Amino acid sequence: MTIQRLHVGLTLSEVAIHRGTIYLAGQVADDTTQDIAGQTREVLGHVDRLLQEAGSDRSRILMCQIFLPDLGDFDAMNAVWNDWVTPGQTPPRATVQAGLANPAWRIEVVVTAAQK
Amino acid sequence: MTIQRLHVGLTLSEVAIHRGTIYLAGQVADDTTQDIAGQTREVLGHVDRLLQEAGSDRSRILMCQIFLPDLGDFDAMNAVWNDWVTPGQTPPRATVQAGLANPAWRIEVVVTAAQK
Amino acid sequence: MTIQRLHVGLTLSEVAIHRGTIYLAGQVADDTTQDIAGQTREVLGHVDRLLQEAGSDRSRILMCQIFLPDLGDFDAMNAVWNDWVTPGQTPPRATVQAGLANPAWRIEVVVTAAQK
Repeated sequence: MTIQRLHVGLTLSEVAIHRGTIYLAGQVADDTTQDIAGQTREVLGHVDRLLQEAGSDRSRILMCQIFLPDLGDFDAMNAVWNDWVTPGQTPPRATVQAGLANPAWRIEVVVTAAQK
Repeated sequence: MTIQRLHVGLTLSEVAIHRGTIYLAGQVADDTTQDIAGQTREVLGHVDRLLQEAGSDRSRILMCQIFLPDLGDFDAMNAVWNDWVTPGQTPPRATVQAGLANPAWRIEVVVTAAQK
Repeated sequence: MTIQRLHVGLTLSEVAIHRGTIYLAGQVADDTTQDIAGQTREVLGHVDRLLQEAGSDRSRILMCQIFLPDLGDFDAMNAVWNDWVTPGQTPPRATVQAGLANPAWRIEVVVTAAQK
């Protein structure tokens, strides 16, 4: 069974697709001067773009893990999230506190989704 | 391919099912006055109930991630876990230390399983 | 649909296979006297061996989560990783800082892969 990969780099690929299931690399913000709301919006924008390229969209997320270095960011992250998710198609989610590879990142999001 | 969701909320769903694979949201205890043994028992009870609703059970878990804020809780968590798993059908597991969204939670469990 | 498990223990199995998808338990080093480069090499060797037993290899990884207690180990881990991955078939990856169950472990790696 073929694996399709998108945005293949030397260290990682942003996307792998196998049997209709899509795996995204952990998504982080490019503009690290943003606050948690801005970084969350940018990261969810990355997720939208990658899912579209993979033949899916935010209404077809199967699982989402969110890593926050600072749990004080939880409510502001959640407000952006709640505006973003598709009503009636919200995915399972787990949010935990964990440090990220770049200290300027305030959120990292890991998504598994289904192709259309 | 259809995605089935159970316990659909505004922020997240507790369950997503796609092509026979079941994804559960991170499970935590409602009664946060309990010690680690009590919280672990309650959380694994949530897993049992959700897997049953999804057409599966604890003998069909494919992967389990356990997040503990306090690694001093590891042995007491593990004792409850070892009594709970189905002999001969124990799942792959990874346990790491991570803070949780509510400081009163002592454990969060993320499960992927297979339908019967 | 049958679930195949390998290296089944009382607490966990090292591998579960379902519908062509392989789930590995979190892999850690046995020789904890090693530095991060040595532990990373050992852990990725465990991944190679388990994937081979499951009918796959490192070119067919769908997702990899890496947990590092000390983010100061990131660059040295990454150097070993970059030498190990299959060019053109690099997997999605997420790396976060998290404590591990044994304080002598410097890295834990969680892999999902596809059978050949």
